[in-house]
Amino acid sequence: MTRPSGRTPDALRVVEIIPNVSKHAEGSCMVKFGDTHVLCTATVEEKVPGWMKNSGAGWVTAEYGMLPRSTSSRMDREAAKGKQSGRTQEIQRLIGRALRAVVDMKALGERQVRIDCDVIQADGGTRTASITGGYVALWMACEHLIRIGALKQSPITDSVAAISCGLYNGVPVLDLDYIEDSSADTDANFVITGNGGIVEIQGTAEKDPFTEDQFMALLSLAKQGCNDLKALQLATKQALKAA
Amino acid sequence: MTRPSGRTPDALRVVEIIPNVSKHAEGSCMVKFGDTHVLCTATVEEKVPGWMKNSGAGWVTAEYGMLPRSTSSRMDREAAKGKQSGRTQEIQRLIGRALRAVVDMKALGERQVRIDCDVIQADGGTRTASITGGYVALWMACEHLIRIGALKQSPITDSVAAISCGLYNGVPVLDLDYIEDSSADTDANFVITGNGGIVEIQGTAEKDPFTEDQFMALLSLAKQGCNDLKALQLATKQALKAA
Amino acid sequence: MTRPSGRTPDALRVVEIIPNVSKHAEGSCMVKFGDTHVLCTATVEEKVPGWMKNSGAGWVTAEYGMLPRSTSSRMDREAAKGKQSGRTQEIQRLIGRALRAVVDMKALGERQVRIDCDVIQADGGTRTASITGGYVALWMACEHLIRIGALKQSPITDSVAAISCGLYNGVPVLDLDYIEDSSADTDANFVITGNGGIVEIQGTAEKDPFTEDQFMALLSLAKQGCNDLKALQLATKQALKAA
Amino acid sequence: MTRPSGRTPDALRVVEIIPNVSKHAEGSCMVKFGDTHVLCTATVEEKVPGWMKNSGAGWVTAEYGMLPRSTSSRMDREAAKGKQSGRTQEIQRLIGRALRAVVDMKALGERQVRIDCDVIQADGGTRTASITGGYVALWMACEHLIRIGALKQSPITDSVAAISCGLYNGVPVLDLDYIEDSSADTDANFVITGNGGIVEIQGTAEKDPFTEDQFMALLSLAKQGCNDLKALQLATKQALKAA
Amino acid sequence: MTRPSGRTPDALRVVEIIPNVSKHAEGSCMVKFGDTHVLCTATVEEKVPGWMKNSGAGWVTAEYGMLPRSTSSRMDREAAKGKQSGRTQEIQRLIGRALRAVVDMKALGERQVRIDCDVIQADGGTRTASITGGYVALWMACEHLIRIGALKQSPITDSVAAISCGLYNGVPVLDLDYIEDSSADTDANFVITGNGGIVEIQGTAEKDPFTEDQFMALLSLAKQGCNDLKALQLATKQALKAA
Amino acid sequence: MTRPSGRTPDALRVVEIIPNVSKHAEGSCMVKFGDTHVLCTATVEEKVPGWMKNSGAGWVTAEYGMLPRSTSSRMDREAAKGKQSGRTQEIQRLIGRALRAVVDMKALGERQVRIDCDVIQADGGTRTASITGGYVALWMACEHLIRIGALKQSPITDSVAAISCGLYNGVPVLDLDYIEDSSADTDANFVITGNGGIVEIQGTAEKDPFTEDQFMALLSLAKQGCNDLKALQLATKQALKAA
Repeated sequence: MTRPSGRTPDALRVVEIIPNVSKHAEGSCMVKFGDTHVLCTATVEEKVPGWMKNSGAGWVTAEYGMLPRSTSSRMDREAAKGKQSGRTQEIQRLIGRALRAVVDMKALGERQVRIDCDVIQADGGTRTASITGGYVALWMACEHLIRIGALKQSPITDSVAAISCGLYNGVPVLDLDYIEDSSADTDANFVITGNGGIVEIQGTAEKDPFTEDQFMALLSLAKQGCNDLKALQLATKQALKAA
Repeated sequence: MTRPSGRTPDALRVVEIIPNVSKHAEGSCMVKFGDTHVLCTATVEEKVPGWMKNSGAGWVTAEYGMLPRSTSSRMDREAAKGKQSGRTQEIQRLIGRALRAVVDMKALGERQVRIDCDVIQADGGTRTASITGGYVALWMACEHLIRIGALKQSPITDSVAAISCGLYNGVPVLDLDYIEDSSADTDANFVITGNGGIVEIQGTAEKDPFTEDQFMALLSLAKQGCNDLKALQLATKQALKAA
Repeated sequence: MTRPSGRTPDALRVVEIIPNVSKHAEGSCMVKFGDTHVLCTATVEEKVPGWMKNSGAGWVTAEYGMLPRSTSSRMDREAAKGKQSGRTQEIQRLIGRALRAVVDMKALGERQVRIDCDVIQADGGTRTASITGGYVALWMACEHLIRIGALKQSPITDSVAAISCGLYNGVPVLDLDYIEDSSADTDANFVITGNGGIVEIQGTAEKDPFTEDQFMALLSLAKQGCNDLKALQLATKQALKAA
Repeated sequence: MTRPSGRTPDALRVVEIIPNVSKHAEGSCMVKFGDTHVLCTATVEEKVPGWMKNSGAGWVTAEYGMLPRSTSSRMDREAAKGKQSGRTQEIQRLIGRALRAVVDMKALGERQVRIDCDVIQADGGTRTASITGGYVALWMACEHLIRIGALKQSPITDSVAAISCGLYNGVPVLDLDYIEDSSADTDANFVITGNGGIVEIQGTAEKDPFTEDQFMALLSLAKQGCNDLKALQLATKQALKAA
Repeated sequence: MTRPSGRTPDALRVVEIIPNVSKHAEGSCMVKFGDTHVLCTATVEEKVPGWMKNSGAGWVTAEYGMLPRSTSSRMDREAAKGKQSGRTQEIQRLIGRALRAVVDMKALGERQVRIDCDVIQADGGTRTASITGGYVALWMACEHLIRIGALKQSPITDSVAAISCGLYNGVPVLDLDYIEDSSADTDANFVITGNGGIVEIQGTAEKDPFTEDQFMALLSLAKQGCNDLKALQLATKQALKAA
Repeated sequence: MTRPSGRTPDALRVVEIIPNVSKHAEGSCMVKFGDTHVLCTATVEEKVPGWMKNSGAGWVTAEYGMLPRSTSSRMDREAAKGKQSGRTQEIQRLIGRALRAVVDMKALGERQVRIDCDVIQADGGTRTASITGGYVALWMACEHLIRIGALKQSPITDSVAAISCGLYNGVPVLDLDYIEDSSADTDANFVITGNGGIVEIQGTAEKDPFTEDQFMALLSLAKQGCNDLKALQLATKQALKAA
């Protein structure tokens, strides 16, 4: 089997995290998984959703969008259609859950951090790139809160990253690009913390059902992939601290 | 550890599938997982979505809804709010994918079967009940097509069922009811075919991340639970054939 | 003239009121007018709409919906279409007005009872079944308020029921089913209290206009029909009190 | 009893029908029931709704709206709110049914007449004024079709008018204005053809239920009122024919 | 060159302002620019938008709508379509800005005046008629506030009017009617105060770009036209004061 | 007077046009006016809107959006709110008109080019940057059509650019940034072709009305600014042709 990109089955695409791409946001990065580029920004708001008021705890939420021509064929703009698709809502709910898993809400205090993940260019894996980059933007926003004296220490309890895996021509491969994703038998997304805890698993048989053994092979690839992403996140944070 | 319901960790709730509950639908059943009651109907339409026209293949799709007072506190009616929630869309997309996994679309021919899953009463596990009952309604609609001469043989290639599992007070348990679901550390849904193939896995850490071993324990429970559901589906189909 | 169902002109369909069909609602019943089945639930909310605040009075409101395949041909889900039809709104406004006519709002106190009428299966007369069953659910919710000590006595001042009549092949008939309703010349709905007061009359000529005499014949049938429904409501309440 | 306006119980307000108020419409009039002013226009479209295509028959439909400051307190604009209220939809459905009752759809041919009723100023009775004036606009549009040679003879089979009645301080009165309408015990609308046939009856108890005798008194007033409106419609048509 | 209407290039249509056309509004007029008729009403609300609370200042806002058959071909009702068009929003934003330019918001006090401009009949220039008539309604509402003692003196600082100009067959002409507007090369709208200050300029090349000289010719016409409108506004106000 | 940025009154910000920033679009660039960054993409569709079918002519249209955190305070996502604001619609209509002014629609043939302008970072002047960059994306898409043989020659008849001007502390200045825009007395946008023709003028008095002389000063600045933008557009096109 050869992957269209020529990558080995366990190879990530070239991944980059470029922080501080927004003049306005409290935290921001452009995350690139090959040709998939997602702009992640973190916004701190000094109020929480109504149902959390006076709870003493904060909240982290996420929104996701794709620019109309981020894809090969232009998609209609969701703002023009007047609603977000089921896919969009599913992804932004996933990003939010993933990021909340590594935040101590009491330590964050009664404020909300909103993560916006906007896909500038898509080539598969936009949700995993969003989680991976969204974490960096979130971390930066918490550092910002420390810097301005609003927090004594970071409410972030661990790092978190995400990667997709799939069965492509029957072979387990890591980090599907669009062409692989379109024809994969099985597609799975994994969200894993820096400490190796699993936060979310989503595996879907696109054609034939898969076996437990196949699934374990995908999980194994994902653990390795998230470990590499964790290293890149760490390097980014260290560079930011050194700056 | 004791489950609130007194069940053992590997015990399903009492599950019932009552077929033919609708005068109008081509297939229908009321599926009960304990106090969770879902009305599943199948509607055959002799046309397919625009993007499938002249493909020679059919389609299966699903919609999901909850009656406003199916829940402990009344929920606002989605029709009145003017849109379906992200959760609703996520669930109906899952049901559709699960059912399509066991249908040969070419054999179905250029027609669509729409599965409606309406929650009459909710007590946890509505999506897994919907898939399990939706399969029966779908199978009935295909039998109907054979009976009226529209099909020679059923396009259904396997059965499919779904069950939730979770870590409740740290213990892997099968088929969470609402009270367990609300406080579970981890919640996972599994969609498994009659032949034991996995169609969908969704695992989410609600509090702390989970480990691979914990996840394997949940998968093991799910396989057993889906096996029991498969037996009930089979008995229902046999009774219908005998009638 | 023979009615398609073989009923005599002044015969109701078999009517049943099955109370306590919901685990969660403060009052509930499944009301059946032949093959028309409507699930009615009552929800008590300890707040009133904004415009009634501090009025010292309560409110009763109703919502109505049809499951997509409650009908012979599947209807699109209103939640998916993003709005309720004019017909839906017209019916739920009627149900609300009918029920409010037998409630002393001051005696109810500053709380709201919401009646949800969801059509599980439709065969004509869903709005009249909804009012007839909605009354029982409302009464049960008030009894619940007495039972938990929130009210000393019931704010219900009378019973209320509703029935349709029509000119079918020129003959006045009671309680139209779908096949009659589709071809009736005139269709009328009557809402009448236990004491015989008229709360609402809606008569519509579907083809030729009708005369005053014809209308009086319909009203006469309706009074008799509502009297029978009142007896069934009473029996249901007595059985519940005895339980 | 004295009516706020000083009218006797059986007195209509001053009613005027001013035809040809629109430069563009195929038929138009401003109808005034006292301070209630409704602009009615008729638009002929040479196509019918999709479900009527190739039926050989035409259709008549109506839409209703209120200008934001047609009322004592400004109402929000429905276009700005993004949906029509239940009341609006109920009224425009009523107007359409009323007008269709006096049109031979086969004779109209496969075309649609749309009646727009826009309330310029409201003081009670906007729906009855809309029907009464809408009929004139519809008749004018049919005359227009004859004039341009599209029709040989008018498809209008009768005239139709509408009036409200109510129990005001217990007394049956004709043609309620806003102040009466707001405090009436019972409010009823009647749609009656020139030949005296009844097309629609809607009676609602706003406070206490009403009796059959009370209802008959309202119907009697309505017949007289519609007779007067019929005379005015006739005079308007004769003046137009003479012009 | 001859204008379709026979007017000279610098001639306005016959312009009329008929005040006090609404029983309910605090200020109102029907403004007519030839066959373009716009009903303008002013509503005083004793509260301001949320973002202005406790600012001590008031606000003026405008809404715009067209009756469905105000135009040559019937337009769909925006309330039925569920949203206002871009054109509608653009026009109502323009009207609001134009009117706010001549109001001292501090002097108005913490209240809002809403101007509704509803096009009864359209023949080009509806937005300029709306501004010209909207000013009169606004002025009347302020006089009303003085009359009831809510204000000591008018917060209106100047008058404001608007007119369109365009290049029709290459010739600069004033006050385009619909037939001119449809084929004009360039269309421009000018909002000018009584003191001759310019509040808004909007010039658009519909076909070929225009030159600075052409634009200056349009501006020159507009100044003259607004001067005439100012005189008419003044006469209307004097008549009202005299009454 | 000193501008906050230290620029002289007639100085543009640093303007950059970076072409080919999208892997998928037929034409694309990132245009930067200082800290205002807009991603412009052009999409070619081989079909036209319904009302243009069989006209033999093409169409150019534009959509505009802002990323939620492109601004200093986060804005709600229009897709989540379910509609585009009046401002958004106004801007995208302006961009479309501006670009259509330099395209020969017959020469384009029956196809549509859609320009998407998405604001990645905002600091004033997003609509003028969108037009200036949108032109380059449009030009690239036409070159693409020539390259693939769909067109023999470009349908572009001229270049077009846009710039804002305003009165800042009473002084006419070119290319307002956000801080200037927020406090300018008058704000005007000019769209001017390469040949110096004016396509659109929009001038708005934010506080006091402006005079004709002031307006002429703004127009003079705009002509110079658009000339500079034209040179940059030309250089970009030449570099692309050379590549």
